[in-house]
Amino acid sequence: MNFPLAKVAIIGVGMIGGSLGLALKQNKVAREIVGCGRTEKNLQNAVAGGAIDRYVLDPAQAVADAELIFFAAHNKAFAETLKLIGPALKKGAVITDVGSVKAPIVEIGERLTPEGCYFVGGHPIAGKEKSGAINLVDGLFTDRRCILTPTTKTDSGALALVRKAWEMIGSIMIEFDPHHHDRVLAAISHLPHLIAYTLVNAVGELGEKDDEVLMFPAGGFGDITRVASSNPEMWRDIFLMNREAVVEVIDVFLGKLQRLRGEINSEDGEALFKDFAMAKKTRETILVHGTPGG
Amino acid sequence: MNFPLAKVAIIGVGMIGGSLGLALKQNKVAREIVGCGRTEKNLQNAVAGGAIDRYVLDPAQAVADAELIFFAAHNKAFAETLKLIGPALKKGAVITDVGSVKAPIVEIGERLTPEGCYFVGGHPIAGKEKSGAINLVDGLFTDRRCILTPTTKTDSGALALVRKAWEMIGSIMIEFDPHHHDRVLAAISHLPHLIAYTLVNAVGELGEKDDEVLMFPAGGFGDITRVASSNPEMWRDIFLMNREAVVEVIDVFLGKLQRLRGEINSEDGEALFKDFAMAKKTRETILVHGTPGG
Repeated sequence: MNFPLAKVAIIGVGMIGGSLGLALKQNKVAREIVGCGRTEKNLQNAVAGGAIDRYVLDPAQAVADAELIFFAAHNKAFAETLKLIGPALKKGAVITDVGSVKAPIVEIGERLTPEGCYFVGGHPIAGKEKSGAINLVDGLFTDRRCILTPTTKTDSGALALVRKAWEMIGSIMIEFDPHHHDRVLAAISHLPHLIAYTLVNAVGELGEKDDEVLMFPAGGFGDITRVASSNPEMWRDIFLMNREAVVEVIDVFLGKLQRLRGEINSEDGEALFKDFAMAKKTRETILVHGTPGG
Repeated sequence: MNFPLAKVAIIGVGMIGGSLGLALKQNKVAREIVGCGRTEKNLQNAVAGGAIDRYVLDPAQAVADAELIFFAAHNKAFAETLKLIGPALKKGAVITDVGSVKAPIVEIGERLTPEGCYFVGGHPIAGKEKSGAINLVDGLFTDRRCILTPTTKTDSGALALVRKAWEMIGSIMIEFDPHHHDRVLAAISHLPHLIAYTLVNAVGELGEKDDEVLMFPAGGFGDITRVASSNPEMWRDIFLMNREAVVEVIDVFLGKLQRLRGEINSEDGEALFKDFAMAKKTRETILVHGTPGG
């Protein structure tokens, strides 16, 4: 397939879907970008912000004649949406997504995509705690990693098409097995989010006994807990979808915290120092090797 | 006592002590600011950066004739330093500090400050993960809270002097009982630091089995773990000095995390959503009420 594509559809024009539309338009990935969503006001914002050329409320209408479809709505709506749009898909159409958990989405995508059309799982490592097309971010995916999760069933032409579209908007492409993706993200993204939620709720509980606690966002509290202002519905779904991998990393975290608690309680300064120094070093290693995501 | 003071001494001219010197000079709190420390190169940087007028390596020499002395070196050197400088203190001299844990420091200060001189515990809520006078921060204390921790033994004139000095550099002053300070800071500063260290070490351990984990600082990982790049020695001492309060807040955190783990494991989406929504709301409450610290 040649670029620019004639038509791209984006289902779910929130902060991610909308910023994606903006990037696709700016980089001439498609001649026409059609958005689809449930909230007309949000879609109007997306048109006004230059994220999409026009919108429709009916997913089947949105995908008609589209060569590439990005599913950027809530993960839990994916199966139902695929069933709805299936009969309307153009032959050879490629569907991809932007979800944070891949194994269950890829399973659904491969099972429900009609014969003659193709599914490729995707996950751009970019985001903010804000949501909605009112929060479009220019250049959100530039120099950020985007993980595609092909399997043995993935069509190589469809994979190349999706890859090319992301590359055209500046993403650094990586390919992972879907389960491997989910284990890595459980550690590096889902666990930190859960920790931020936990920390805020722990401080909130302590604040019930002593409200001065709530008056002092000191020591980087704002930074540490920033992601706790993310969309609770989206994150609930992420944890439920990636349950096994998440529980595994929580247990590793719990083990480490119990250990530090023990070192503090028994006043083992030497062990504490070692653990803190290791953390400082590990953090620098991670940030040197990695390209920061959102 | 009238401002500007004739001489202020700062013992320990690191990032905090040095930035304090800079602010005291800029705001004409003292006519002369003398620094004292162990590392001559660092003291030279402090002079070059405008943080102090001159330096000496001998603490007793530093405090001679000083009306106000800031102890900004490592907490664990406090008792020894007080013993060293005691005989050299001018009558009526006021000693204060900038440490993150107050009850044990106040106990030492009140016990070891010579008759006719005064101690007032202090803690400016400002800081960065950087250390050393090479990392001076202009305006570090402006519009930041500074907690003083007077007790029934505190001299009211000494308290007023210390308060005035901080106010002159733009700090927002608060007074807490030392133990109350330590409980509040355990929740809002020490716990978040410990969580950041724990998270980095958990991710480091997961990275030993799968090094892709170390390649993806996604989902705000950099923000969440920023404080894990703080000075490990300083933080070891903070946790040891504030052991009881810290263990108490760790246990609250552990309880919350166990609860979230249970909700994920049993796929209780409703409870998860409630907990996440509560965190989002609590975080906003904390950040609205509080003036962010460092």
